[in-house]
Amino acid sequence: MPNTFGKLFTISTWGESHGAAVGVVIDGCPPGLPLSEADIQGDLDRRRPGQSSIVTPRKEKDQVEILSGVFEGKTTGAPISMLVRNSDARPGAYDEMREKLRPSHADYTYLTKFGIRDHRGGGRSSARETVGRVAAGAVAKKLLSQKKIEIRAYVSRIQDIALPPGTPKGFPTEAEVEASPVRCPDPATADKMVARIEDVRSKGDSVGGIVTCRIRGVPAGLGEPVFDRLEADLAKAMLSLPATKGFEIGSGFSGTLLLGSEHNDAFVPKAGGVGTATNRSGGVQGGISNGEEIVFAVAFKPTATIMLPQATVDTAGAATELTGRGRHDPCVLPRAVPIVEAMAALVILDHWMRNAAQTRTFSS
Amino acid sequence: MPNTFGKLFTISTWGESHGAAVGVVIDGCPPGLPLSEADIQGDLDRRRPGQSSIVTPRKEKDQVEILSGVFEGKTTGAPISMLVRNSDARPGAYDEMREKLRPSHADYTYLTKFGIRDHRGGGRSSARETVGRVAAGAVAKKLLSQKKIEIRAYVSRIQDIALPPGTPKGFPTEAEVEASPVRCPDPATADKMVARIEDVRSKGDSVGGIVTCRIRGVPAGLGEPVFDRLEADLAKAMLSLPATKGFEIGSGFSGTLLLGSEHNDAFVPKAGGVGTATNRSGGVQGGISNGEEIVFAVAFKPTATIMLPQATVDTAGAATELTGRGRHDPCVLPRAVPIVEAMAALVILDHWMRNAAQTRTFSS
Amino acid sequence: MPNTFGKLFTISTWGESHGAAVGVVIDGCPPGLPLSEADIQGDLDRRRPGQSSIVTPRKEKDQVEILSGVFEGKTTGAPISMLVRNSDARPGAYDEMREKLRPSHADYTYLTKFGIRDHRGGGRSSARETVGRVAAGAVAKKLLSQKKIEIRAYVSRIQDIALPPGTPKGFPTEAEVEASPVRCPDPATADKMVARIEDVRSKGDSVGGIVTCRIRGVPAGLGEPVFDRLEADLAKAMLSLPATKGFEIGSGFSGTLLLGSEHNDAFVPKAGGVGTATNRSGGVQGGISNGEEIVFAVAFKPTATIMLPQATVDTAGAATELTGRGRHDPCVLPRAVPIVEAMAALVILDHWMRNAAQTRTFSS
Amino acid sequence: MPNTFGKLFTISTWGESHGAAVGVVIDGCPPGLPLSEADIQGDLDRRRPGQSSIVTPRKEKDQVEILSGVFEGKTTGAPISMLVRNSDARPGAYDEMREKLRPSHADYTYLTKFGIRDHRGGGRSSARETVGRVAAGAVAKKLLSQKKIEIRAYVSRIQDIALPPGTPKGFPTEAEVEASPVRCPDPATADKMVARIEDVRSKGDSVGGIVTCRIRGVPAGLGEPVFDRLEADLAKAMLSLPATKGFEIGSGFSGTLLLGSEHNDAFVPKAGGVGTATNRSGGVQGGISNGEEIVFAVAFKPTATIMLPQATVDTAGAATELTGRGRHDPCVLPRAVPIVEAMAALVILDHWMRNAAQTRTFSS
Repeated sequence: MPNTFGKLFTISTWGESHGAAVGVVIDGCPPGLPLSEADIQGDLDRRRPGQSSIVTPRKEKDQVEILSGVFEGKTTGAPISMLVRNSDARPGAYDEMREKLRPSHADYTYLTKFGIRDHRGGGRSSARETVGRVAAGAVAKKLLSQKKIEIRAYVSRIQDIALPPGTPKGFPTEAEVEASPVRCPDPATADKMVARIEDVRSKGDSVGGIVTCRIRGVPAGLGEPVFDRLEADLAKAMLSLPATKGFEIGSGFSGTLLLGSEHNDAFVPKAGGVGTATNRSGGVQGGISNGEEIVFAVAFKPTATIMLPQATVDTAGAATELTGRGRHDPCVLPRAVPIVEAMAALVILDHWMRNAAQTRTFSS
Repeated sequence: MPNTFGKLFTISTWGESHGAAVGVVIDGCPPGLPLSEADIQGDLDRRRPGQSSIVTPRKEKDQVEILSGVFEGKTTGAPISMLVRNSDARPGAYDEMREKLRPSHADYTYLTKFGIRDHRGGGRSSARETVGRVAAGAVAKKLLSQKKIEIRAYVSRIQDIALPPGTPKGFPTEAEVEASPVRCPDPATADKMVARIEDVRSKGDSVGGIVTCRIRGVPAGLGEPVFDRLEADLAKAMLSLPATKGFEIGSGFSGTLLLGSEHNDAFVPKAGGVGTATNRSGGVQGGISNGEEIVFAVAFKPTATIMLPQATVDTAGAATELTGRGRHDPCVLPRAVPIVEAMAALVILDHWMRNAAQTRTFSS
Repeated sequence: MPNTFGKLFTISTWGESHGAAVGVVIDGCPPGLPLSEADIQGDLDRRRPGQSSIVTPRKEKDQVEILSGVFEGKTTGAPISMLVRNSDARPGAYDEMREKLRPSHADYTYLTKFGIRDHRGGGRSSARETVGRVAAGAVAKKLLSQKKIEIRAYVSRIQDIALPPGTPKGFPTEAEVEASPVRCPDPATADKMVARIEDVRSKGDSVGGIVTCRIRGVPAGLGEPVFDRLEADLAKAMLSLPATKGFEIGSGFSGTLLLGSEHNDAFVPKAGGVGTATNRSGGVQGGISNGEEIVFAVAFKPTATIMLPQATVDTAGAATELTGRGRHDPCVLPRAVPIVEAMAALVILDHWMRNAAQTRTFSS
Repeated sequence: MPNTFGKLFTISTWGESHGAAVGVVIDGCPPGLPLSEADIQGDLDRRRPGQSSIVTPRKEKDQVEILSGVFEGKTTGAPISMLVRNSDARPGAYDEMREKLRPSHADYTYLTKFGIRDHRGGGRSSARETVGRVAAGAVAKKLLSQKKIEIRAYVSRIQDIALPPGTPKGFPTEAEVEASPVRCPDPATADKMVARIEDVRSKGDSVGGIVTCRIRGVPAGLGEPVFDRLEADLAKAMLSLPATKGFEIGSGFSGTLLLGSEHNDAFVPKAGGVGTATNRSGGVQGGISNGEEIVFAVAFKPTATIMLPQATVDTAGAATELTGRGRHDPCVLPRAVPIVEAMAALVILDHWMRNAAQTRTFSS
């Protein structure tokens, strides 16, 4: 089931960029959760196009409709089907892409694999598919909030413009992240990032960077010792997002420069349990959460679509040239923030439920 | 099924570091493949302890026994059960760990999750579990070799000692990788790496680094557009290995410093199809292989077990001190090379079979 | 994923009887299949309420809308989302059921399990959920027809009115089945069945019976030797339908009265292979199809909703009485015929794809 | 994963009739359960060959070895690997079957599917595979006994010799079932059954019948409303057993002869909740347990191997004759009883854990 994610709280997304609609079906949702469209629209608004001057101008309200699984304002345990109509589709804008393969896009690989391709705005390979993930993630977040688990992603680097070391201080609030359209919680850095994106856009080019995600309130015990390590499932979740090229947890790649004596997180007694003096583990040890903050980072490449002429081939394999058209993000990171949060929420919630099934039901 | 990996070619591993044995069951193996223990022992020997002076001295022959699924020298399509007895278990060496929690190990998290812990050498959380992965990976490699797919991993960095840019030239041979016990294909760099590991070991400390993996011969079309992207499944596979902290494909984290116009891989006509002028995509576009070499890197932290005193707590949560004992690798990377290859082989083979099921069976 | 069926060709249904809509998402559909709403509507019409005088008068056109996965008239390999709006919902007709639990319905068990219940017409437990199964089954049938596989279900018994031994002669045509509203291919028997149903309805009562299903053209080799035997997956598919109480394949329960020497199907040489002289196996041996016709039967109980007063309890557990209201089928079998066919098609297609993945991709 | 069963408490079996061993890996077992080989051997002894004069004389002690997942007498949450060596394999006895296909066996279908076949005693298709199921089922039973859930299967009919109506009175004890080698709890009927089996065996023939299974103590709420109905999963479990041809729950096939007014189970107030006056539902309504006893029946055909000459073909498709040899059961039902119980235990436990994950973890 290549379009399904999760084991117990599972989501199945469907839809193409310029088809009738995009949507998601959640299966396995616990019953009794108060839920309405309003709970979901907020994150969809953070993801939607046209929200600011540094993202694509495509105009979509991305208004969600809940079609099933909710009765008199509460979830019933039945599948929750949610749908968002595509209203500003302009398939004609993509006529040139019917024949020409966009470099570093999915055009060539999708066509080769399936022998057929909806060329309009990437079809199924479009980031528009993430509407369903964000809608489902909003439900997951609401459930996790019952357990006092909070997830916060933000842009920590655009090209070479990075958050200064030691910032943000503490766990940033959503307001701090949302204060800038680039979703970087340090105002001065955010301004530089916005300027960079505007500059790059004005040249018809694009730019990438890094999203950091932090999760607090996760108790020790979520995850598995072997294949379904919490970091493995987070890595899969993040690398399943369009434009991602890398994932690291805790000390990540730079941690490989340290000696073991420098890298280990000493255990220390803590009110109500055990803590660690440092957090190079990023909140996960041996695949299982240790109660510290979970911290990971995701690398997003510069948007593949640029407004500059590029060498490419057509569907017959002959050399040609292509200049990007249509409406595109010069930088995907601002809109990626709620998507990263959604995927993180889905992973944590799924492991919560898995853990409950195996370790809290039978006693010795 | 937290101890199972793969959708169609699935493996289920079992066993603890100091239990009776470790093993694996492969389900879904194509029938008719000539297979004997000799096909598997080679990779197990590359993984086994005691193979050189820079790895743990634990003495295990790691001799594999095939218990089912092979008849008169060929696979039958039935499950292949393989087992390796633990012969040099010394559980007594771990008595201290019954009470004390090793920093940056799975001790605390496993105990918190399950309420019980086999403390002997990490129990289920030991890297000894990877015996089963390597055995299954050897079967996968043999199947992939029928399709001319070749997988080569090697150590590209130990702490700050990295392969020089532009090396190795071309796709390294297995002999080039195996020439040094550290499994770095550049002899001069390999020597420095070995010296560093020996130095660190002599101080009771440990060190990490990066394993690079390259796969050639993968046709365009393997992978999926959404959740089960090829890079997502590779990321999950790699982050499911002990001691890993990061994964990147193609240009990875450093690719985020480029502009889109610098990063895109231009398509070019190629004998028999379409190729790319550069390979920042790392062989995968839109989640699907594009026919170019697949290239990714995995970060391994310094081994958590060191022979130096460390602050920690005991199982009652009280502060104490622990000095590592037992037999350990000062650096896990040399032995990680065949494990990374095994996991990569499992991912590629699984996607080969998935692709065959959906796209080659019915015609329009 | 309790609302998903299948391993490679998977369907996920959603929706409630009196919610906004019911629907299904197909994942894993082979690309390139010509497909439009017209391919699906036919089977939906055979399933829909109000189609004849012996079924429920609820008026639903059950018009299907394809929302994704089809481009320029062909499937793309992406998820196919299909939706049917509920147009004749009359939730008010069910006010009494908010408090009273209908005997032999899902009311009590759903409420006990989930702590909440959409009482309107059964909510998620309504047979209206099978709209999605039938829509997906129509796609599966179209794919199977490429392989010359044909599925025909029909009513073989209503209460004690059974098809005479030896009828129908040969594999009945769809026209023969559809000739009577009861979907029994023997006209004389069909007339008696219709009369029985009308008689029972006039008394406010209900009646059950048996649906037989036959599948021809399945090559030898589909199925698995152990858990996923073809008959096991068919049994699960059929017992997952509302109102089913039993399943048998080939000789079934009556075969247990024979001796082995009477029961065995002798192999005989056959043009192009091997056949059997008799077919007590029902087309499956050792869990795998043998090339003979697949034959199985499904028992459906009398509809639980009757227009007669029945003793029951209310949601507080106190004794009360309930007389059925709303619009109901006095006998579910006529409308069950296309549903049985749909589930059979899903099982056969899924096993076709699974078989292709494991046994036709790699050679020895 | 055709050799795996279950979603959360999953078992994967492996091994062939005349290979080195047969075994099973349990994944997802709750931690902290006291467990040793003694807990498992009892059910294996009820299943093993050579246990009485009416079963196959093959001599296997079927001594189980636990290889992992248990530490200091308790389960750890890690996979439990169990193995039984084949000690009385006599592969030479099957030389004739290398070329000749046994009627109504898996020989032809397995060979056609996989292109290769371990002909010795059925290979993977042998009922010897059920050793693993019974071993895993014993663990499941022990967990269920914590919840006061009890499972009892017994032979209710051999050919036409059936338990008299109304027997056994109440829920039979294990001692009552085990009192006769045929495992029928009514002594007079059991004697007739034994005589019939001995008579049939003396003629070289074989015989089938019905196993009834009853489960008490299951609370209301286990199961799912749609595909994973409790009866659907039980049906799949039972039809996945060798030699089964049918499954029915509650009133089953004979219930189709009743009117709805006769068939419905009236709800009645009951100490501590709600009960039903009758149990034609067989303990399941709308796919979910209702707290009443779960009752189902399974049809087993007469053993395919008989000691009489039969027409068949060889692997080249030419007509030939075959007379059964080797050691075989003239009737599989006595040994099927513990296997049916094992599969039932696996289904109930799996649904217990699934239910716990979705409905007991989050509150409204």
